[in-house]
Amino acid sequence: MPMTDAELADLYRDYIACLNRRDWPALAQFVSHDVMHNGRPLGLSGYRAMLEKDVEAVPDLNFNVEMMTCDPPNVAARLAFDCTPTGEFQGLAVNGKQVKFTETVFYEISDRRITTVWSAIDKAAIEAQL
Amino acid sequence: MPMTDAELADLYRDYIACLNRRDWPALAQFVSHDVMHNGRPLGLSGYRAMLEKDVEAVPDLNFNVEMMTCDPPNVAARLAFDCTPTGEFQGLAVNGKQVKFTETVFYEISDRRITTVWSAIDKAAIEAQL
Repeated sequence: MPMTDAELADLYRDYIACLNRRDWPALAQFVSHDVMHNGRPLGLSGYRAMLEKDVEAVPDLNFNVEMMTCDPPNVAARLAFDCTPTGEFQGLAVNGKQVKFTETVFYEISDRRITTVWSAIDKAAIEAQL
Repeated sequence: MPMTDAELADLYRDYIACLNRRDWPALAQFVSHDVMHNGRPLGLSGYRAMLEKDVEAVPDLNFNVEMMTCDPPNVAARLAFDCTPTGEFQGLAVNGKQVKFTETVFYEISDRRITTVWSAIDKAAIEAQL
């Protein structure tokens, strides 16, 4: 049975809460074993490794959903970040400076799990703050 | 009466077709006189000026809707571009090279017109092609 808009929104918020509490074991509840990220077949383990690396580079990383549109089976979100990458981030020498930027992400959901992710970080916004 | 998902999708596709045929006089059918773009109060005339400048810098600019989610009153879209900026573009010396990149955009629609736009271009993708 397809999910409703409201169910999809709840699922997405639960996924974001999972990321914000660094609950990697729970990631499998939200992310498919075959997940694709920007065209790459990362799979759940690769997806988790990417997130762990992000959090290592940005210890105060917090995902804040600024805008969300739910249109089953798709979710689009604009995520806002206000954080302090400790070293290089997105190929930029941020080195402990506090930066604000957004990421826009399109997800496809199947069987209550994220199967496809298209993500873009507003790198120009970060550059403008360095 | 609020628009349905399907009506919103039709409206958005008509807006994109308007851009692709450079039909600036028709822009007022889709864009509010008070439109905000990335937090700036551009208004319809400023919005049109921005588009005209984009098309001058990128004569073969074509808006291609790769993904769209409609969740009234919001639309989110991932636009794909495959084009040839003649000179500088997004602060980068593209100078006639063909580049592919995406833009993700969130819109708010009120009274059948776009009132708010949040847009981010994947500048990193362009840089990687230069």
